[in-house]
Amino acid sequence: MGLTTYYIFASLDGFVAAEDNGLDWLYELDPGDRDFSTYMEGVGAFAMGSSTYESVLRDSGLLEHPERWIEGHRGRPAWVFSGRELPAVPGAEITFVYGDVRPVHAAMVAAAGDKGVFIAGGGGLAAEFFAAGLLDRIVVGVVPAILTAGKPLFPQPVTSAQLKLEHVEHVRQVAYLTYACLR
Amino acid sequence: MGLTTYYIFASLDGFVAAEDNGLDWLYELDPGDRDFSTYMEGVGAFAMGSSTYESVLRDSGLLEHPERWIEGHRGRPAWVFSGRELPAVPGAEITFVYGDVRPVHAAMVAAAGDKGVFIAGGGGLAAEFFAAGLLDRIVVGVVPAILTAGKPLFPQPVTSAQLKLEHVEHVRQVAYLTYACLR
Repeated sequence: MGLTTYYIFASLDGFVAAEDNGLDWLYELDPGDRDFSTYMEGVGAFAMGSSTYESVLRDSGLLEHPERWIEGHRGRPAWVFSGRELPAVPGAEITFVYGDVRPVHAAMVAAAGDKGVFIAGGGGLAAEFFAAGLLDRIVVGVVPAILTAGKPLFPQPVTSAQLKLEHVEHVRQVAYLTYACLR
Repeated sequence: MGLTTYYIFASLDGFVAAEDNGLDWLYELDPGDRDFSTYMEGVGAFAMGSSTYESVLRDSGLLEHPERWIEGHRGRPAWVFSGRELPAVPGAEITFVYGDVRPVHAAMVAAAGDKGVFIAGGGGLAAEFFAAGLLDRIVVGVVPAILTAGKPLFPQPVTSAQLKLEHVEHVRQVAYLTYACLR
């Protein structure tokens, strides 16, 4: 069974999106700077919150180009947590869910097989997995931008006794910090 | 002439102190995790803002134990930017200044000789040096704690075109990210 990882790009000052959920600060990077294809090989299933899903829909034009979802997610199934009705990407394997993360996590783990479960944001959803004791790792891709305001990396306080820095990697403009979540 | 560096510990979500300027999240680390003695060898002069100075005074009990200032700063001169009158550490080489950072920077560079100028915080002071084109590097020691609120790393937006990730280092629980400021 693979690990459950919150994998997110964040500004140097800890925001994962601008106040309007914009990701311009991320897209300003050269595409080679935000390549995480190596990481993707280990991913068996995705979870994301409604704002993250809407950002992906909008920024990638997925309703007009649903093939981009398949390319981006390499055919892995996704679960979208939302209390609102959201448009589905045609042909994509997306399950819309709401509420307790635990049964959804069990279904994701089963679908992922020996690969991992990947929480693509936002911070609120990651915090729910963390609070339920289901988060094994946090990987933050720190982007050299300072936003001064926006959507937080994680909305709940966490102490250094709960996180162990395991690995640091420098790939062009992005510093990838990998933490184990201690329980 | 050495480089001018903003050198700061920050939480994973980009705060350099709690709302009350507290640093408990930093002091919770094992002392070996926040050892920056290697870095200190390159420092010729320090600058800090009034809140940072007051935190250092308070947390190190410097008015009762002024020898700790000398130990901590290894005899390097410091400049404290403040519009308020602040207590001086007995015997310490501290110049209290106010206003334009440029003439102060020139004095610091002269005092530092072939060593560097070190801005120890807060973010507001670092941003003044940055805006004046006087900041060469930002080194952030990322601590594995999430605060959700507090004093920001840097109060002005900065884009990835203005910062170049130069070096990443993993020392126990702290990830040190070194950025060159591009002008």
